[in-house]
Amino acid sequence: MKQIRIGLLGFGNVGQGTYQTLMMNAETIERRLGVKPVVTKILVNDVKKDRGIKLDEGVLTSNAEDILKNPEIDIVVEVLGGVEPASEYMITAMKAGKHVVTANKAAVAANYPNLMKASGENGVSFKFEASVGGAIPVLTAIQTQLQANEFTEVMGIVNGTTNYILTKMTDEGLPYEEVLKKAQELGFAEADPTADVEGIDVANKLSILMALLFDKYVKPEEISRKGITGVTMADIEAAKVRNAKIKLIAKAKLDDRQGLTYSVEPTELPAEHPLAGVSNEFNAVYVTGNASGELMFYGRGAGPLPTGSAVAGDILSIIKEM
Amino acid sequence: MKQIRIGLLGFGNVGQGTYQTLMMNAETIERRLGVKPVVTKILVNDVKKDRGIKLDEGVLTSNAEDILKNPEIDIVVEVLGGVEPASEYMITAMKAGKHVVTANKAAVAANYPNLMKASGENGVSFKFEASVGGAIPVLTAIQTQLQANEFTEVMGIVNGTTNYILTKMTDEGLPYEEVLKKAQELGFAEADPTADVEGIDVANKLSILMALLFDKYVKPEEISRKGITGVTMADIEAAKVRNAKIKLIAKAKLDDRQGLTYSVEPTELPAEHPLAGVSNEFNAVYVTGNASGELMFYGRGAGPLPTGSAVAGDILSIIKEM
Repeated sequence: MKQIRIGLLGFGNVGQGTYQTLMMNAETIERRLGVKPVVTKILVNDVKKDRGIKLDEGVLTSNAEDILKNPEIDIVVEVLGGVEPASEYMITAMKAGKHVVTANKAAVAANYPNLMKASGENGVSFKFEASVGGAIPVLTAIQTQLQANEFTEVMGIVNGTTNYILTKMTDEGLPYEEVLKKAQELGFAEADPTADVEGIDVANKLSILMALLFDKYVKPEEISRKGITGVTMADIEAAKVRNAKIKLIAKAKLDDRQGLTYSVEPTELPAEHPLAGVSNEFNAVYVTGNASGELMFYGRGAGPLPTGSAVAGDILSIIKEM
Repeated sequence: MKQIRIGLLGFGNVGQGTYQTLMMNAETIERRLGVKPVVTKILVNDVKKDRGIKLDEGVLTSNAEDILKNPEIDIVVEVLGGVEPASEYMITAMKAGKHVVTANKAAVAANYPNLMKASGENGVSFKFEASVGGAIPVLTAIQTQLQANEFTEVMGIVNGTTNYILTKMTDEGLPYEEVLKKAQELGFAEADPTADVEGIDVANKLSILMALLFDKYVKPEEISRKGITGVTMADIEAAKVRNAKIKLIAKAKLDDRQGLTYSVEPTELPAEHPLAGVSNEFNAVYVTGNASGELMFYGRGAGPLPTGSAVAGDILSIIKEM
């Protein structure tokens, strides 16, 4: 069976989730595709570290060029996180004629025009489904099955940490600081939670959604942004009285009169709004098309396997196109 | 600009919704695709009837061969409804080398193996996104972005009429007969509601979902099926006491021990289940993959434009592949 060779840049949660998805479903994938995707190189800092995963001799490398300039590798998967060197690596790979898949919202949001340009100029695919909403296949749907629509609005709950915190504040009546501490203990929040709780991560995702929905790139730092650190129990209780819930919402709206308006902020949603029922660490994106009407895509926005599902889905789509 | 010629078989609600979607978003579609999809022939019973839509001379025809055997037509769109002659027309079109798109769940469910065979043997595309869940792009997601998963379970609310009736019974405390009458007056239920209220329509959709998710074709008449005619106010009230809602659920589960089990029946869902919040005429499909985890796709399951959005999406996907 023909092999397609894949190089992973990074082998943290998402890299390992991608590897595991490809391995555990290998038989099904080979049957569906008629080819065998094989991870032949993985970039790590420390090739000696025990990760509890058995890999063939020589798969791990600490030299990025072993992947980026390796003529035997067809698809480069960037799962390092952070804007640099991830963006530079992806552009180098595309210039070397390799298709690129990434889960990295910060890099895609920061360098969307350059990454798209590199993909176009070098005639290679560039896919980033996992960068918004983890396993939820919303970016692909926007770019394929919904393409007969003009989009008018998007609202998203696209950060699991903040949605978990707001859910616990609402359902258990616990104040922000206490829930954050619990979330950190459970691994749902980072030791430094700034990027999540201040809405920086959400702004990155909104930038990506707007680029695809409205064909307009807005730098994440130009998005008006308010996190959840100022949400008090009094706000939560006042919303409850109005039969509403407070959610951290990424929103963009295209309007004949006002053009495109966009923001990230805690927003009161009536209980019957489909996004109001999205609880705990789950994510959802609510999109309105002028033919489709309202659609919602719901699922796990993070975690090794859900994110691995999306990265692996992009890899398989590229293989089908090849 | 290059033109792609489309023939519509049928010009009822879905046919007109497809035509309208392609017309109202023509500029956007041409920009996205770089080609111009043009509806050049439409099969109708009566070419003289005034439909309030301006069409070029000679577009309407009452002879199916003008489309099925027309060498100038690239894509045939079947929106007649019913198993025959729809299935026969689709197979004839594929044998003539034409790509086929349909919204017809009854025909796809009844003849899935034959339709797939005709597509494979003649090297043409066969797409049917609109046949389950209207605008909701769940079938495409299963076949593309989620293909790295093995699926373990699906639950769906895939009939708007019965979901509308159950929602009104629950929220307004009105008995079945009264709500059905109201739904018929509003056009949400047919004069003969059998196919909807007895779960026949839902069984067709479950057959299609299972074929794609589990690679196993089950004839719709072999699916154990219970409609909503036996759901009483006492059932609804008893569910409420348990903080649950009754929904007409299409369900299939793949289990190492029991294999594939499936049914269509009114089911009590706990209020916090994502499907419990799907109200009125909305549809949703809840799918579990072994990597992705739980996903839900929500939106409008019927109506000319939502269904037109899905049919047009299939047309544009085929054009991209051509």
